[in-house]
Amino acid sequence: MSKLKLGVIGAGRIGKVHIATLVQSVPETEVVALADVNIDGAQQLAAQYGISFVSSDYREIIKHPDVEAVVICSPTDTHARYIVEAAQAGKHIFCEKPVDLSIDVIKNAIAEVKKAGVKLMVGFNRRFDPNFRKVHDMVASGKIGEPSILKITSRDPNPPSPQYIAVSGGMFLDMTIHDFDMARYIAGSEITEVYVKAAVLVDKAIGEAGDVDTAIITLTFANGAIGVIDNSRKAVYGYDQRLEIFGTKGMVTADNNFPDNHRYFTDDGIHGALPLNFFMDRYLDAYSTELKLFCDAIVHDKPVPVGGEDGLMSVAIGLAAKKSVAEGRPVKISEILA
Amino acid sequence: MSKLKLGVIGAGRIGKVHIATLVQSVPETEVVALADVNIDGAQQLAAQYGISFVSSDYREIIKHPDVEAVVICSPTDTHARYIVEAAQAGKHIFCEKPVDLSIDVIKNAIAEVKKAGVKLMVGFNRRFDPNFRKVHDMVASGKIGEPSILKITSRDPNPPSPQYIAVSGGMFLDMTIHDFDMARYIAGSEITEVYVKAAVLVDKAIGEAGDVDTAIITLTFANGAIGVIDNSRKAVYGYDQRLEIFGTKGMVTADNNFPDNHRYFTDDGIHGALPLNFFMDRYLDAYSTELKLFCDAIVHDKPVPVGGEDGLMSVAIGLAAKKSVAEGRPVKISEILA
Amino acid sequence: MSKLKLGVIGAGRIGKVHIATLVQSVPETEVVALADVNIDGAQQLAAQYGISFVSSDYREIIKHPDVEAVVICSPTDTHARYIVEAAQAGKHIFCEKPVDLSIDVIKNAIAEVKKAGVKLMVGFNRRFDPNFRKVHDMVASGKIGEPSILKITSRDPNPPSPQYIAVSGGMFLDMTIHDFDMARYIAGSEITEVYVKAAVLVDKAIGEAGDVDTAIITLTFANGAIGVIDNSRKAVYGYDQRLEIFGTKGMVTADNNFPDNHRYFTDDGIHGALPLNFFMDRYLDAYSTELKLFCDAIVHDKPVPVGGEDGLMSVAIGLAAKKSVAEGRPVKISEILA
Amino acid sequence: MSKLKLGVIGAGRIGKVHIATLVQSVPETEVVALADVNIDGAQQLAAQYGISFVSSDYREIIKHPDVEAVVICSPTDTHARYIVEAAQAGKHIFCEKPVDLSIDVIKNAIAEVKKAGVKLMVGFNRRFDPNFRKVHDMVASGKIGEPSILKITSRDPNPPSPQYIAVSGGMFLDMTIHDFDMARYIAGSEITEVYVKAAVLVDKAIGEAGDVDTAIITLTFANGAIGVIDNSRKAVYGYDQRLEIFGTKGMVTADNNFPDNHRYFTDDGIHGALPLNFFMDRYLDAYSTELKLFCDAIVHDKPVPVGGEDGLMSVAIGLAAKKSVAEGRPVKISEILA
Repeated sequence: MSKLKLGVIGAGRIGKVHIATLVQSVPETEVVALADVNIDGAQQLAAQYGISFVSSDYREIIKHPDVEAVVICSPTDTHARYIVEAAQAGKHIFCEKPVDLSIDVIKNAIAEVKKAGVKLMVGFNRRFDPNFRKVHDMVASGKIGEPSILKITSRDPNPPSPQYIAVSGGMFLDMTIHDFDMARYIAGSEITEVYVKAAVLVDKAIGEAGDVDTAIITLTFANGAIGVIDNSRKAVYGYDQRLEIFGTKGMVTADNNFPDNHRYFTDDGIHGALPLNFFMDRYLDAYSTELKLFCDAIVHDKPVPVGGEDGLMSVAIGLAAKKSVAEGRPVKISEILA
Repeated sequence: MSKLKLGVIGAGRIGKVHIATLVQSVPETEVVALADVNIDGAQQLAAQYGISFVSSDYREIIKHPDVEAVVICSPTDTHARYIVEAAQAGKHIFCEKPVDLSIDVIKNAIAEVKKAGVKLMVGFNRRFDPNFRKVHDMVASGKIGEPSILKITSRDPNPPSPQYIAVSGGMFLDMTIHDFDMARYIAGSEITEVYVKAAVLVDKAIGEAGDVDTAIITLTFANGAIGVIDNSRKAVYGYDQRLEIFGTKGMVTADNNFPDNHRYFTDDGIHGALPLNFFMDRYLDAYSTELKLFCDAIVHDKPVPVGGEDGLMSVAIGLAAKKSVAEGRPVKISEILA
Repeated sequence: MSKLKLGVIGAGRIGKVHIATLVQSVPETEVVALADVNIDGAQQLAAQYGISFVSSDYREIIKHPDVEAVVICSPTDTHARYIVEAAQAGKHIFCEKPVDLSIDVIKNAIAEVKKAGVKLMVGFNRRFDPNFRKVHDMVASGKIGEPSILKITSRDPNPPSPQYIAVSGGMFLDMTIHDFDMARYIAGSEITEVYVKAAVLVDKAIGEAGDVDTAIITLTFANGAIGVIDNSRKAVYGYDQRLEIFGTKGMVTADNNFPDNHRYFTDDGIHGALPLNFFMDRYLDAYSTELKLFCDAIVHDKPVPVGGEDGLMSVAIGLAAKKSVAEGRPVKISEILA
Repeated sequence: MSKLKLGVIGAGRIGKVHIATLVQSVPETEVVALADVNIDGAQQLAAQYGISFVSSDYREIIKHPDVEAVVICSPTDTHARYIVEAAQAGKHIFCEKPVDLSIDVIKNAIAEVKKAGVKLMVGFNRRFDPNFRKVHDMVASGKIGEPSILKITSRDPNPPSPQYIAVSGGMFLDMTIHDFDMARYIAGSEITEVYVKAAVLVDKAIGEAGDVDTAIITLTFANGAIGVIDNSRKAVYGYDQRLEIFGTKGMVTADNNFPDNHRYFTDDGIHGALPLNFFMDRYLDAYSTELKLFCDAIVHDKPVPVGGEDGLMSVAIGLAAKKSVAEGRPVKISEILA
């Protein structure tokens, strides 16, 4: 059987991760083309992983006759455009989140994808974390009865730079967007309303840049459940990613992952390791599983596990969250989608 | 040194607990008088614990010349009246929560207590739970830096009867009131605003009685921190009482207590005991410590650890929570206290 | 119903614990008499707990016409003698462990008890710890199938003084004796052989006093299971009392108890409290349950849960352990009992 | 820099694991040759991983001019012979454990390796498990003071077939050999004596084949510490690999690894996943790290982390364990090595 041929657009941090995964862990695929505006970096990466075609122009990847699917790892403001062009060229698409920060732009991209009949998967990698996946599967199979309360804790080890924050779209579209997707995934139901209480408690510079760094976000789900996300841009003890879902027949929780499970007993207490501190470490398996499932969906013509509508919804919820902070009231998602 | 002489009003469930604690674990006190409208039950209890004076009339306890302090365990709607009368009689007062469901009535009771110069302690027993106390002490001593996010989970094993719910004042004044007090205690700061998303997910009859059984409550603190309480009237796995507080220098958490710490490994998983299921079991130590500290405050003329203002604030927050549900918006505590 | 009348012999540390338990937590009994060679201390204790009769002569307790049962808390070398005299006086007996350090003396005491038809319970309090009791009950009800491997960890926070060690009978008869009893209790089978590897790793003075302070003790059970106890006289992190039992259908474990369950997350790791450091704290419930069951056995004429034979066996195993160290070989318990 | 060229001998289960690791995770090496008596299987594997030279004759690997180092994954009875031949051909050697079951044969192989000046690493992969490595590093850096007690639990999920057991050399040389190496590694000291209490509690057929399936093994270390290993061929709850080391200043423990960290709360208890059940899963990282370090030692001419003497010692201890069971007494390792 011939291998699925992929082209990657963007050779930055996440592009490198995806290429390494595809080459080392997805034997049924082949990365045949790579584009980055930084052509030197792209050529070096191509040499390391045996990628034959390199360009500084993403269009050459999309148009490359061997390329069956593109993996879009370029900056956010290019995502929707590349999706549209790839769809029009008949290529399947894996795109990093978020698709865009504008609802209309995302809707248009989804429409083009549908018209072209190609597959579009959005990179919500955390859905493929073994802990969260286990919780999802247990909820989906009825182990907790009807979901009542969902709680997600999501805290970063360190805030991004003020420069990054200025262009990020704000915490809700940059960081919490993952949690919005996770909430929909775990609860198995759409979010219909959000109320956000936010604060600047990590760094005043973040507030001066017009963003917040700490938040408690109340969620209402279509199935009647309610939920809460708590966020901070800085947890001194590291990357904190936990959740619990409570229902009429029980509760399931997922905890952080750790570099090792040693415990150290001294006259001063019992001590253990901090959580894996870097999202690449925590979600290493998730990144790999995500791309395997994307390739598998193409090769066996199955639905992708996270589609364009999922990309749309998380951005809509993020925009509702911003509005909630601005107006100090609960905001319905339908206000944003209308 | 002569013993502190106490009179107990109310010989129901909590009255029995307090009498047993005083007799068995607070050697520097003596229960000399007991009143209950059910005079037979009171006499039986008095015989069991060697209490010499029994009456069906609470006024005989308050006026009893030997009684130096009263412990009020009667129904909520009598609390404020008994406090006022006891204060006017110059007796120190321990009163079960809530003081009353009306802000004005509570304010009046506090005023009378102040005028009389007696001590009033309100029975927020959970402050004396070893786990929560440890968290409080660590926060108060600066171990987590500035508090940023407080999270309290408080779920009951089973809802009360519809009859009880009808007269309870609703979940926020009956159950969450403990969590409001805990939030103020742990965060070390006043709550200034609440927003509540509530639902009826446990039993429709609760909704029909005009109450809710599930809630996510966002808290704003005067010191800038934010917080969230999640409540359910029914957790199938038992009484669930946990909290965590996250700050600029670290986080502290407290978990449930368990009847034993066995773990059972089978071909089906690793299994452990459920949390202590009954609030009397979970907070046994807390009930005992609470009364010891009340007696200690009188004997050594020290401030009581939980005063009338604490009783006032939790009711105000509870009323704000009800208003938030009714009006679907965040409510400032100052709106209630004004 | 009239209360069971008890006389206590010995008002040292453990005597005080037992008196407090009986007075505060066993309402169906009454402590009516107390003896200690230190008459002043005994009188003070009697005043505190309302004990009417005090003497410096234990015989006055045994002969006291009101005393139905004696609680022997005097030094080890008096235990067997007091048991014999109490039995001959027709009194039921609770005796602290060990009964004696001589097999013949213990056998004689047991014979006298049988002749008199009174009850004798030996104070192996740890059997009544909720964690160990849960493990025992699960094993006894077949939850792990056939027991295969039993592991007990038992380490003290600090070694006793050299003076105490000199008269203690050595670590195996003073400290490990509890673990020998626990092993028999948990495995539900007799120990038939021991092999001990011992060392002096805590304090050379202990070695110079002819004792050891660290040991690994292999156990053979009559039912085919095997086991191991590890001991140290000094664990810097506190009192360490854990066990696990592994069988053909599963495993059950029991852990230490802790003063609280807080966890503290900093940039330096995750930290928790040390185990309860003092045996009185760890086994507080156990001491109380033990005496309740003794009194219950008398009042309702049921068998005591730990009898004279249990006292005999643990001493026999302790003596076998000493012989194993001395001779560097496995020693059968039958060699000692013969 | 040119890549290190490796030849693999043996394409069975462990051979496949090593080839996958080398190809996917050790980019500075290249597998250029593969031998297996099953030439068809070898050719298939070679095609999958792009290995250019395949043979049914291991000698063609050893003699292959491009091969700089061999990875020996063939049956145990060939190990020593292949080591000797590879050493004589000037090739570096990675060899699966055990080197051989005869002390003299191992000594001879080590002598040939030394004469040839090549590197020999023995595949004690568990040393590279992140949990055990963390414990080792903490002990080595003095975090627990002087080691006093080492405890290793090592239990398999299922016994091997009776046919395998018949040729395995027995449990101590087949299974416990890993634990002997781990004990030396963690304690940082040689084992000088063993005493074993063994039993047949899993399957009578194992006993009939002349082997045991359950054991408690007491260890004496040169540095004065003592230790214990407990083994079972069958733990119904899965692969159980834990250890703890207790010293004068503290204790460190390592636990099992789990497929996920979910916890499930029902009215029946709190439930979690079983440990990773297969040694390949538990020690996946360890297998990878092990080969990286072997290659690294060759490329940068550093000592290998586990040498021939380590292979010799674990077999010697295994033989001493067998002798201890046969003779019912502690056996010194020097009796075996003499």
